Amino acid sequence: MLSVGLIGLGTIGRVHARNIAANPEMHLAAAFDPVAARMREIADMFGARGAAHLDELLDAKDIDAVVVGSSTDTHSDIATRAARAGKSVYCEKPLDLSLDKALATAEAIRPTGVPVMMGFNRRFDESHAALHHAVKDGSIGRLQLVQMTSRGPNAVPTDDYIRASGGFYRDKGVHFFDLLRFITADEVAEVSTMGAALSDPAIGALGDIDTFIVALRMKSGALVQIDNTRRAIYGYDERIEVFGTGGLVESGRTPRRMVTRSSGDGFLSEGLHANIFERFGRTYYAAMAAFGQFVRNRENSVPSLDDAIAAQIIAEAVVIAAREARTVTISEVIGGARGA
Amino acid sequence: MLSVGLIGLGTIGRVHARNIAANPEMHLAAAFDPVAARMREIADMFGARGAAHLDELLDAKDIDAVVVGSSTDTHSDIATRAARAGKSVYCEKPLDLSLDKALATAEAIRPTGVPVMMGFNRRFDESHAALHHAVKDGSIGRLQLVQMTSRGPNAVPTDDYIRASGGFYRDKGVHFFDLLRFITADEVAEVSTMGAALSDPAIGALGDIDTFIVALRMKSGALVQIDNTRRAIYGYDERIEVFGTGGLVESGRTPRRMVTRSSGDGFLSEGLHANIFERFGRTYYAAMAAFGQFVRNRENSVPSLDDAIAAQIIAEAVVIAAREARTVTISEVIGGARGA
Amino acid sequence: MLSVGLIGLGTIGRVHARNIAANPEMHLAAAFDPVAARMREIADMFGARGAAHLDELLDAKDIDAVVVGSSTDTHSDIATRAARAGKSVYCEKPLDLSLDKALATAEAIRPTGVPVMMGFNRRFDESHAALHHAVKDGSIGRLQLVQMTSRGPNAVPTDDYIRASGGFYRDKGVHFFDLLRFITADEVAEVSTMGAALSDPAIGALGDIDTFIVALRMKSGALVQIDNTRRAIYGYDERIEVFGTGGLVESGRTPRRMVTRSSGDGFLSEGLHANIFERFGRTYYAAMAAFGQFVRNRENSVPSLDDAIAAQIIAEAVVIAAREARTVTISEVIGGARGA
Amino acid sequence: MLSVGLIGLGTIGRVHARNIAANPEMHLAAAFDPVAARMREIADMFGARGAAHLDELLDAKDIDAVVVGSSTDTHSDIATRAARAGKSVYCEKPLDLSLDKALATAEAIRPTGVPVMMGFNRRFDESHAALHHAVKDGSIGRLQLVQMTSRGPNAVPTDDYIRASGGFYRDKGVHFFDLLRFITADEVAEVSTMGAALSDPAIGALGDIDTFIVALRMKSGALVQIDNTRRAIYGYDERIEVFGTGGLVESGRTPRRMVTRSSGDGFLSEGLHANIFERFGRTYYAAMAAFGQFVRNRENSVPSLDDAIAAQIIAEAVVIAAREARTVTISEVIGGARGA
Repeated sequence: MLSVGLIGLGTIGRVHARNIAANPEMHLAAAFDPVAARMREIADMFGARGAAHLDELLDAKDIDAVVVGSSTDTHSDIATRAARAGKSVYCEKPLDLSLDKALATAEAIRPTGVPVMMGFNRRFDESHAALHHAVKDGSIGRLQLVQMTSRGPNAVPTDDYIRASGGFYRDKGVHFFDLLRFITADEVAEVSTMGAALSDPAIGALGDIDTFIVALRMKSGALVQIDNTRRAIYGYDERIEVFGTGGLVESGRTPRRMVTRSSGDGFLSEGLHANIFERFGRTYYAAMAAFGQFVRNRENSVPSLDDAIAAQIIAEAVVIAAREARTVTISEVIGGARGA
Repeated sequence: MLSVGLIGLGTIGRVHARNIAANPEMHLAAAFDPVAARMREIADMFGARGAAHLDELLDAKDIDAVVVGSSTDTHSDIATRAARAGKSVYCEKPLDLSLDKALATAEAIRPTGVPVMMGFNRRFDESHAALHHAVKDGSIGRLQLVQMTSRGPNAVPTDDYIRASGGFYRDKGVHFFDLLRFITADEVAEVSTMGAALSDPAIGALGDIDTFIVALRMKSGALVQIDNTRRAIYGYDERIEVFGTGGLVESGRTPRRMVTRSSGDGFLSEGLHANIFERFGRTYYAAMAAFGQFVRNRENSVPSLDDAIAAQIIAEAVVIAAREARTVTISEVIGGARGA
Repeated sequence: MLSVGLIGLGTIGRVHARNIAANPEMHLAAAFDPVAARMREIADMFGARGAAHLDELLDAKDIDAVVVGSSTDTHSDIATRAARAGKSVYCEKPLDLSLDKALATAEAIRPTGVPVMMGFNRRFDESHAALHHAVKDGSIGRLQLVQMTSRGPNAVPTDDYIRASGGFYRDKGVHFFDLLRFITADEVAEVSTMGAALSDPAIGALGDIDTFIVALRMKSGALVQIDNTRRAIYGYDERIEVFGTGGLVESGRTPRRMVTRSSGDGFLSEGLHANIFERFGRTYYAAMAAFGQFVRNRENSVPSLDDAIAAQIIAEAVVIAAREARTVTISEVIGGARGA
Repeated sequence: MLSVGLIGLGTIGRVHARNIAANPEMHLAAAFDPVAARMREIADMFGARGAAHLDELLDAKDIDAVVVGSSTDTHSDIATRAARAGKSVYCEKPLDLSLDKALATAEAIRPTGVPVMMGFNRRFDESHAALHHAVKDGSIGRLQLVQMTSRGPNAVPTDDYIRASGGFYRDKGVHFFDLLRFITADEVAEVSTMGAALSDPAIGALGDIDTFIVALRMKSGALVQIDNTRRAIYGYDERIEVFGTGGLVESGRTPRRMVTRSSGDGFLSEGLHANIFERFGRTYYAAMAAFGQFVRNRENSVPSLDDAIAAQIIAEAVVIAAREARTVTISEVIGGARGA
């Protein structure tokens, strides 16, 4: 049994709380959140103790692993302290919105040698993961094209969310830059992009975009298209396809139910999930289970600090490409980051 | 070039006229219909001569083959006369609504030795035909179950049509009894059924049904379900599946176009064809082409007189099963028919 | 929190144990099984106490509800004793393989007034349940046809299983007779059937069948086809469609994942679940949750003793129809059962 | 009846010959090709006269319309001469591989006032056309994203074909640049791209690419992704989706038949067409029929000279974007072309 301390009890923190409790090989020992009412509620539901303050949890002898689900600006500090306290760490992405600070944090954590996993949950979607395996087992042949689409949910994010997000490329884009590296087992060579605020003028007013298309060239030569939109009125639509000389593999739309209706004007099949937790709920469970397994035997592969940095570097390259309306190489960003 | 005389220029006759004209290896030489205006129209469209009377067409030296698309009560007489005149014959089903008369007609035609094909066009649907090939090549293994569904079109038949049809089992059922023998290469051993007038009370008032389910046991032991309804508001829905120890093969729904829409309440894919000619239009062309090929070299297999009789015997067994609410063996009907 | 005692820790008992433990509003207090090792294992996994003998569990003051997952021949006795002890009862189907004994058991339990739910878990499949709602809300119009297919799993049942099952109609058929009543909110008027041992000769040698087609006429006049097979090499294939004057609603195949591949010879989409627990695992959780809710407020509708009896009567009618090769009315069986 | 003269009897010319012959409102009067044997063959099949030389056909009094299906380098000259001879013109794309020469040709043809249609047959695919209508009728809302995919056929083009093609962007890309303008009823503002020779090294050796991704921003702000590959081993895979604030409409994959098989390892549905003529055969017929209608009453909209020029300008912009690895505006190309 892995004894876990959970930090941050907002939306994602509660998802982790439930998954830790449901996992037969994990135990939710303690939880911490600045809002006391949240701690009491979680304590009641899952029998975990509420920590009086953060240090109490980080220092607790009976805690093996810390899950960092607090606000983004605290990830770096908490993950570093937890690692230095010898705890295994599961940390929500990103380490920090600033690439430089993320690099520094990774450098601070690495010497501790503790198992660290970054929360790129989409890797644990069974259908997405099938693409990783199809590339790996050679059935795709020489990879030519990857197409990733993600749209939704059917809801407008709040202004506060947008302001704290680091922008759409950094906030949502990184998930797909990580997935792309995971699926292709290849590195990105260069990127270009076009972005726009199309679904919600309020997002444009905040200086952000809600729709982007990103083109990438991999080191192997394969080409990649990623399109992302913040909102789709028809639900959470995420699909990936991988195409090469050996053929095609797709991770397709996931309907809520297998129900189809017809009253004379076509066949209406059941729609998509309303939000990411409905669509990808199972991946959070699977990711946490993979973390438990990783802490125990370190044999399975999980998203690492290096993976998080790599996805973040791609995001930075895309941000430059958007600003300068040109193709940007990854080496430009790595050089810049190292120089900083 | 096969020189063809077409008899009967109603709905199905016009379909044949167009297909004969479009076939590079056939020539529509003459047409006959009691309604003179119909003959003039077809003559104008396809350059065929209108025959002054039926005998003129049947006796014409320049005509190799006769297509019988006239009303059901004339099939037997015209097909027999055409065969005796040495013409190859393509005849719409049935030979006659009376099984005894159909048997007598077949006996009269057989000695002429002319090539005869019965118009069971569904055998020429590419998707349905795939099931025939899947059974034949062994990929189904030992056959366990056949499920045939046919619903539609989205229109109510006229009272006159119903009265002349011979009843739903004989009119539409025979298509599926024929398809079943074609797909399984097996014979029916026994049948049971339930029928009802559900979509249109007017059909019930005429003493007919508009919906039936028929259960059949094949000589091999395989079981079969057939459901047919005269009307479906969602279009022409026809599907067949074949299941055995080796797996499953399905001939599925055929959409009009590959268009899908979503506006938040599911995915609406394009609907079905409105009627049998939209859905199975291509099979009439293919059936006529198969007839031409059959007349030329007699190598390909086409629905024969014996096939038409066999399907009709199954229909008679089902009619008895409906009346007596019991399982009826095919041998009961064959014995009865022979004794008559 | 509902405090539950679980009786029977075989395959289905373990499924219930896990679901009770995962349910935030239920508590697995005690478990009983004649095999002591099973009790220790469940106790270790879920912290439940093992009962020394059955009476200890049935008499325990701290237990509100009893879940009967023991062997079929014990259902009647245990359910009756639990009800008389004032416990709410969740009982696996059937009450007893003998219709007469099932009727007597229902009569013994009813006066106790305790909440009783029969374990027809398929009612809790979200896709199947959509058909129930579509009939109820009128979108099907006047019901014409129901088609139910269930095939699989890809495994041969043991001889012992077959011998204890009561035969295929009673063992698997009742699930669909229950679903049919649930979906249509109508009663069966008459039935006919054909059955055969096609997938596995060993089943025929035991006097049972592995494939059936059942035709049913509902009191409303709607017609129904049910086909069931014990084994399908392509997995657990279960589908239901409901068709009427207002259109069609289908509960379709449920794939394991949304992955499609193509290497030149078509599109290979992900297959079906290997067995009923993979396919319907979620329905067991939902059924147990519905039981908890039913015990608390008795507002939701759950499968009742009467539902179990009704499904069993249909099965008996089908058994007679098979033996006598004729259409059998439900009233024949009810009359016979009452007379017994 | 429209009397047509056909110039060029290669692959595409024969497709047109067959479609003109099958059209009840068109008549194939004459055909010309430098290869005499081709003319004799077409004359035999369709009863058209072979022209002794090109001028004879262009000057013939009995010919209303000329279809230009000869090699690309002759389009400009023949289309101009036919227009000056007062014939209506159906011309395969492009007018000329050189944008400047295409512009000059269009300027030479326009004053003749004859009806001219450019052979962008994909506009006549029923599923693609549904997207045009969905944008037009407002059901897409404010357009956000268009995704166009075209891969295949499963065959390697010859070196000669590649050399004469003008490069992949100009040869195949223009079809999608035209479709994009047709579907969106909007103009392209700017483009960027990445291209590579991935499926066939021989294509790279010739200085061409076989795979590209193109990103476009429309004047309305909508973003567009187009991916094209010369070869896909799984057949001709072409799909388009249009997404906006009102939802999604897709023109999906078109299978050859509706056949699905399962033998235990998933569901194998029928594959795609092997080449463009199988996949889009019907669009050539529909395009030619639209030409006939356009010549008669000029009411329907067909791809015009201006449409061909517009698509060609986008292709030129993309070629520059590829060379300079940057976003290129359409106005840069138009300015350059005008200045030339």
